[in-house]
Amino acid sequence: MKFLEENLLDHLQRPEFADLFSALSPRAYSKGAYLSQPGHGENLIFIMASGRVRVYLGYEEKEFNLGILTKGDIYSTHTRTFVQALEDIEILVTDVATFRRNMVKDPEVTAAMVRVLGNILKTSFSIIDGLVFKDANSRLVALLAGEARKHGVESEAGIKVSTHLSVEQLARLVGSSRQTVSTLLGDLVRAGLLVRSGRGIFIIPDLLLLESVGGVEHS
Amino acid sequence: MKFLEENLLDHLQRPEFADLFSALSPRAYSKGAYLSQPGHGENLIFIMASGRVRVYLGYEEKEFNLGILTKGDIYSTHTRTFVQALEDIEILVTDVATFRRNMVKDPEVTAAMVRVLGNILKTSFSIIDGLVFKDANSRLVALLAGEARKHGVESEAGIKVSTHLSVEQLARLVGSSRQTVSTLLGDLVRAGLLVRSGRGIFIIPDLLLLESVGGVEHS
Repeated sequence: MKFLEENLLDHLQRPEFADLFSALSPRAYSKGAYLSQPGHGENLIFIMASGRVRVYLGYEEKEFNLGILTKGDIYSTHTRTFVQALEDIEILVTDVATFRRNMVKDPEVTAAMVRVLGNILKTSFSIIDGLVFKDANSRLVALLAGEARKHGVESEAGIKVSTHLSVEQLARLVGSSRQTVSTLLGDLVRAGLLVRSGRGIFIIPDLLLLESVGGVEHS
Repeated sequence: MKFLEENLLDHLQRPEFADLFSALSPRAYSKGAYLSQPGHGENLIFIMASGRVRVYLGYEEKEFNLGILTKGDIYSTHTRTFVQALEDIEILVTDVATFRRNMVKDPEVTAAMVRVLGNILKTSFSIIDGLVFKDANSRLVALLAGEARKHGVESEAGIKVSTHLSVEQLARLVGSSRQTVSTLLGDLVRAGLLVRSGRGIFIIPDLLLLESVGGVEHS
């Protein structure tokens, strides 16, 4: 849901927002440091000034990536997600009361929030699909990865797999419905694990990553 | 993330928004009708004018409720969710191009979007918790429902269950960790399926609903 092209940070640095900008304090985090973890910490709103952070849901045995925040993205430290610096980063923070008083009335600020929440929500729906269709997803990934290992052709973009199968035929092979396999293929494409290259033809940019997501194990 | 108290609809009906308001067309739907389903239909933005609609993720065998939209809530017909009228309702719609041109700059509009997306996102996280901890969740619900059936005391608010167990003890009984059971109890409370009433004491407003969510079957 990106509908404002200007970067929020550039927007806030314009002279007419000097007051608003002065309410933000800079903070720096080193690579690997946590900006926030569920259940601890302050209730702050932050804007990314430089670098990238990863937002994810963490469980005892697995993690689900929700997205990467970059310059101009806005987020909160008070959520059920982990937020971890992927490199040395800088953010601008403010407390929730100041944010509500000074910033919520600015449509660029709320638009940046809509963009970030919308993206995380889309990823959450893909995670739910993956969990609901765990077995079908594993079989689909195993099928595609197996074809890639047997008959795949190396190309610059990744391994090209020509299954020459329709979604309906793929569905029959993994014992699922056309609708489910279509949803799962869409999720894999959105996650960047698969690129469509024609009817029944796929490019796999990173085979090991695809297999790890699909739970394929090598003995 | 509710931070504006005024209802978006009241806001848009103020005289200074006459132009903006005139870009919206009214539509009515009967109880049970679908405002949108994934993969079909127009790409419209709508604001709830009256009544309630249910937003949910639908799969072949199950549905996950994401939330109820009421007067002043704003949402899109172009998502991966089903949107169904729970009663006879009225909405105000506009196409995405008009929305971007005329409405996105209004902070009340974007704030309403943040509120709706934030709520749906929180529910999505609970759904992910439930799927990740499916087995522990079923055992926890079965334990609480079993206690309710054996030793529960009827009260106005529901069936009162006094387990006299700490979260740690509950975790041991369902074969899970304290952290997981604490997360699951939080999700059940947020979903309105459980009310905390003291240490180890819970009220179950609707036992059959709790059991159906937990997958408890009666033979």
